[in-house]
Amino acid sequence: MSEKHTVIFTPSGKRGQFASGTPVLEAARRLGVDLDSVCGGRGICSKCQITPSFGDFPKFGVASKAASLSKWNAVEERYDSIRGLPKGRRLGCQAKIEGDVVIDVPPESQVHKQVIRKRAEARDITIDPSVRLLFVEVEEPDMHKPSGDFERLQGALKAEWGVEARASLSTLAALQATLRKGKWQVTCAYHVPSGQILQIWPGYHDSPLYGLAVDLGSTTIAAHLCDLATGEVLASSGLMNPQIRFGEDLMSRVSYVMMNPGGDVEMTAVVRTAINDLIGEIASMANITRNDIFELVLVANPIMHHLFLGLDPVELGQAPFALAVSDSQSFAAREVGLEMQHNAQIYTLPCIAGHVGADAAAVALSEAPNLSEDLVLIVDVGTNAEILLGNKERVLACSSPTGPAFEGAQISSGQRAAPGAIEHIRIGTDKEPVFKLVGNDRWSNEAGFEQSIAQTGITGICGSGIIEAIAEMRMAGIVDASGLIGSAEQAGTPRCISDGRTNAYVVYEGGSGPKITVTNGDIRAIQLAKAALYAGARLLMDKLKVDTVDRVVLAGAFGAHISPKHAMVLGMIPDCPVEQVTSAGNAAGTGARIALLNLASRAEIEATVRKIEKIETAIEPKFQEHFVEATNIPHATAPFSGLRATTPLPDVNFNTKSDKPRRRKRRTQLE
Amino acid sequence: MSEKHTVIFTPSGKRGQFASGTPVLEAARRLGVDLDSVCGGRGICSKCQITPSFGDFPKFGVASKAASLSKWNAVEERYDSIRGLPKGRRLGCQAKIEGDVVIDVPPESQVHKQVIRKRAEARDITIDPSVRLLFVEVEEPDMHKPSGDFERLQGALKAEWGVEARASLSTLAALQATLRKGKWQVTCAYHVPSGQILQIWPGYHDSPLYGLAVDLGSTTIAAHLCDLATGEVLASSGLMNPQIRFGEDLMSRVSYVMMNPGGDVEMTAVVRTAINDLIGEIASMANITRNDIFELVLVANPIMHHLFLGLDPVELGQAPFALAVSDSQSFAAREVGLEMQHNAQIYTLPCIAGHVGADAAAVALSEAPNLSEDLVLIVDVGTNAEILLGNKERVLACSSPTGPAFEGAQISSGQRAAPGAIEHIRIGTDKEPVFKLVGNDRWSNEAGFEQSIAQTGITGICGSGIIEAIAEMRMAGIVDASGLIGSAEQAGTPRCISDGRTNAYVVYEGGSGPKITVTNGDIRAIQLAKAALYAGARLLMDKLKVDTVDRVVLAGAFGAHISPKHAMVLGMIPDCPVEQVTSAGNAAGTGARIALLNLASRAEIEATVRKIEKIETAIEPKFQEHFVEATNIPHATAPFSGLRATTPLPDVNFNTKSDKPRRRKRRTQLE
Repeated sequence: MSEKHTVIFTPSGKRGQFASGTPVLEAARRLGVDLDSVCGGRGICSKCQITPSFGDFPKFGVASKAASLSKWNAVEERYDSIRGLPKGRRLGCQAKIEGDVVIDVPPESQVHKQVIRKRAEARDITIDPSVRLLFVEVEEPDMHKPSGDFERLQGALKAEWGVEARASLSTLAALQATLRKGKWQVTCAYHVPSGQILQIWPGYHDSPLYGLAVDLGSTTIAAHLCDLATGEVLASSGLMNPQIRFGEDLMSRVSYVMMNPGGDVEMTAVVRTAINDLIGEIASMANITRNDIFELVLVANPIMHHLFLGLDPVELGQAPFALAVSDSQSFAAREVGLEMQHNAQIYTLPCIAGHVGADAAAVALSEAPNLSEDLVLIVDVGTNAEILLGNKERVLACSSPTGPAFEGAQISSGQRAAPGAIEHIRIGTDKEPVFKLVGNDRWSNEAGFEQSIAQTGITGICGSGIIEAIAEMRMAGIVDASGLIGSAEQAGTPRCISDGRTNAYVVYEGGSGPKITVTNGDIRAIQLAKAALYAGARLLMDKLKVDTVDRVVLAGAFGAHISPKHAMVLGMIPDCPVEQVTSAGNAAGTGARIALLNLASRAEIEATVRKIEKIETAIEPKFQEHFVEATNIPHATAPFSGLRATTPLPDVNFNTKSDKPRRRKRRTQLE
Repeated sequence: MSEKHTVIFTPSGKRGQFASGTPVLEAARRLGVDLDSVCGGRGICSKCQITPSFGDFPKFGVASKAASLSKWNAVEERYDSIRGLPKGRRLGCQAKIEGDVVIDVPPESQVHKQVIRKRAEARDITIDPSVRLLFVEVEEPDMHKPSGDFERLQGALKAEWGVEARASLSTLAALQATLRKGKWQVTCAYHVPSGQILQIWPGYHDSPLYGLAVDLGSTTIAAHLCDLATGEVLASSGLMNPQIRFGEDLMSRVSYVMMNPGGDVEMTAVVRTAINDLIGEIASMANITRNDIFELVLVANPIMHHLFLGLDPVELGQAPFALAVSDSQSFAAREVGLEMQHNAQIYTLPCIAGHVGADAAAVALSEAPNLSEDLVLIVDVGTNAEILLGNKERVLACSSPTGPAFEGAQISSGQRAAPGAIEHIRIGTDKEPVFKLVGNDRWSNEAGFEQSIAQTGITGICGSGIIEAIAEMRMAGIVDASGLIGSAEQAGTPRCISDGRTNAYVVYEGGSGPKITVTNGDIRAIQLAKAALYAGARLLMDKLKVDTVDRVVLAGAFGAHISPKHAMVLGMIPDCPVEQVTSAGNAAGTGARIALLNLASRAEIEATVRKIEKIETAIEPKFQEHFVEATNIPHATAPFSGLRATTPLPDVNFNTKSDKPRRRKRRTQLE
């Protein structure tokens, strides 16, 4: 009796011949079909639910009949009566093959579920977590073969799941009582990369395991709590990086350490405490405990990365900007005092270079320039801009010292993006502005605007607002190519007022709030920042010997709010079709989440980082050239198709002394 | 120019052909000659000193001339002037081969030095420590190849020493400053089994690295501090196990945990504190600091082993005596709170079974029954006796519940081996005793004995003393085969006095001290203990189907003091030629020291332990039979050749009721 039947699994399309009586789960395993199971086929976990399809499948050449599977059995009956099985479902470990059959594996029965990302060009995330639940039956102790309980657990995990297991002393301490309580059946939380058993529960256990993706920035620390099995984000939260009291930007924190020996230890302590607070907060938001969190993946710029790991960052503040360690790091959370599950693990992404950190590596993981068919420029704008350029052939990376102007610092009416801040602005041919505030849907010339701002007032301009303001001023003929604001007469609007030796443009005046202007100083600050950004991108384009890129991805919180058109008018980024400029949102945070949810992605980004060609802008003479050339605001009109069809104004030139842009000394990398 | 010369190294006899100009160190490495070097051939460490031999070597077919090596060079000159090179010595990394030559590698230039053990049958220890000093030159950072300092250190260690290195966060934290202080030359303490860099020093560093071999017993904790490179024992110390306040013997400590939940945590804490104290004491004895100790190897019985690791021992107190973990464990000392070098490592030997611990594994490592040509019985006597029997074909192990009688407990005049305790005794044909005290060279009938005991008095009988006393009483016709002491009349000496229903023998009476007697109760206690020991050995002999063994090794402190002849008269151990009974001293401690000094021995004992056949006496019916049969004291005369030539007395029988030894219930394993 070795009658064989054809079994076809959907959606994979995998097929094979199996003897009568083979359980569906076993057939799936032999074919490598992605069918989940925690209990190893004992009818306990119900993770292996499948749906047999009955009828003719001409495409497959199979007629699948009701008798193709063994009858509904007692285990399924019991499971259905207690927990309920959806109609049409069977347990893959109980249903046996008795004829040709087509079997569908529903998404929730797949281990490697897909998390669909919204953006067209972004890859979906395949769930393949580093921590898995494994149920095993352990042999009872035998005086004739006196091995340890742990060695018998190891043997069971090896035999049933093919894994080699290790355990910390704390796991060993809980082992004997747990085995006996579970009557020699236990469920292990197994950490695949280290082979460690992080926790053991008596009997069958299937509470979700959680992980945390943390983006440790100089200003804010953001975290996403994920269900490791589904990829679902259960809670997100963030808090200010308390290191700000040691210095607002990265370099001032490095200076603090230089001036105060031991300052790195202080900063390490406060950031770890903050992350601990954040863990507590996010756990309570999701109604779980710290102990339910089994892994944390962290991305950060090099200085934050070093301070988190307890490494003195001073070498990163001076040439040659040497990282203490560049590779990814894996260690127990307790080693850095983070309070999660007792054996919880931490993974930090690799750093690309002294200025291009694990955050940039996370951006590369999220945006995958190394897999792109077309040439993509990825810009993550912060105090430093990290820039990636490449495609599946080559990827280059550099960092450029944009300074904090894009974040609203060094801008006369600048502020961070908060209610009351102008974030969008348009200037018409009449040179009058209309604008929108953060968190307010009305334009300033729409009915009800005045009432809508009663709570917030109009308090300043945020980073994306200043970019739009300057680009609009340029297109409206209020600013010339060199960045000079014309006088009321030159510009043809009374909103241009004298501001000492230069002029300013009044965006808003009235109410009890401040007068909001864009000054020539503001424009200079933005010119320096955007020139640095552009020069960095340009330098990478030189290295690749290209003059244009196929698409541009703006990453980071700032990138999410920036208007691609205005960025291009300003000359922040190289020209490219505006529809090819997209925002990736918090790509670093997304990269952290990918690394958390998909184990294979860690090896992938480690390999990618090794292959990325690192360009150090500080030692490239061409960078300085590009920087100087890029201070101008190139476009008096939107330089691309498909945008507003106004008649362009004639270009202006308000510089009475010279046609050449003034040369400025390039600021040093971390000034 | 590819002229080749014949080079022969002694004492290894390895030979090869090398081109002119090849450094001796390189030739040695290529031939696999054991020639030390820490600095990798830079003329810094002087570890590679060699002695060229000049003259004719007909055996080798070589004429070795003064011109066979390059001239004494500036590096050697400098080294000699600063530190001094012994006459005739060259630095192997500087001297280059220029002709046929015979080169001797002196013992101090060999990495794998031999530590010679005194006992003829004991294997010497080959030094092959787990922590080695490796000197490397690290590439300086390069902005064009922005790898981390640690990754460049890894690369250098790989290139120069062929090792893969890892580092803890604390090592990484010290890395950058150390590299710069050492001008990119550093010395690493590299832990071979884990691949961890435990410490980094700037430049060349060759202070000795130390390790500690610890034998954690129920009563005492003993430690030996060793120089890991030479094997030299620099200091030894011991202290009482403070767990004694929770219970004197193993089972009472397990009972304490059963009665007091959390008691295991208390006992774990006190024993770790005690070991920490011992580390401090032994370090100051050797005039080093805790931070100079890089590794600790620990052996212990299963209950001590579990308590040290923080594992609840209650399962070891009841059948089936399941160990939580049986394999060897490796972890950082800080994980169990031991204060040594910050990254110091701990290795615990594997346990053989629930009653046969890592201490017995250490005995097996020291005494190597698995390598023995002849059949050896190894007995480690303590509260439980661990028994090993075997040869290179098979090794069997069991534990036997001897109880504390051999340690002087349960003996009316018993005490531990301390000044004032009788440790040797002889009874003449006149039935009068002479004896010797611990720490006193005079027999009690020698001149000056009375004065010599003025300080100590005569306070009791220690374990080895009671064995000699009973054996001598048996041979003198004072005790019969069943263990009964005769009356004064029966035994023919007024030293036999009535003691209620039975009799006692007065060993000493006088002075201000107690009357020291051997009672029938004492003999019963020793009979039970020795019967258990004998029955265990006998059981293993049954399993091997043998009636005799070729030799007996007595291990442990007790074994070191016991008289083989008297042990055999008593029937503690199976008969065998008395000259084949040797003492191994503290074989468990020696095994710990071997594991500390020779890395390969760890894999060896792990493999041996897996192969040892474990016999659980508690479930072997034959054990009970042997036990009952073994309560008698078999020999009225020394049953072996070459011992005192007195005429044997006729055997006696004082039992007026029955000729049969009374049956006693066997005590349970850990009663």
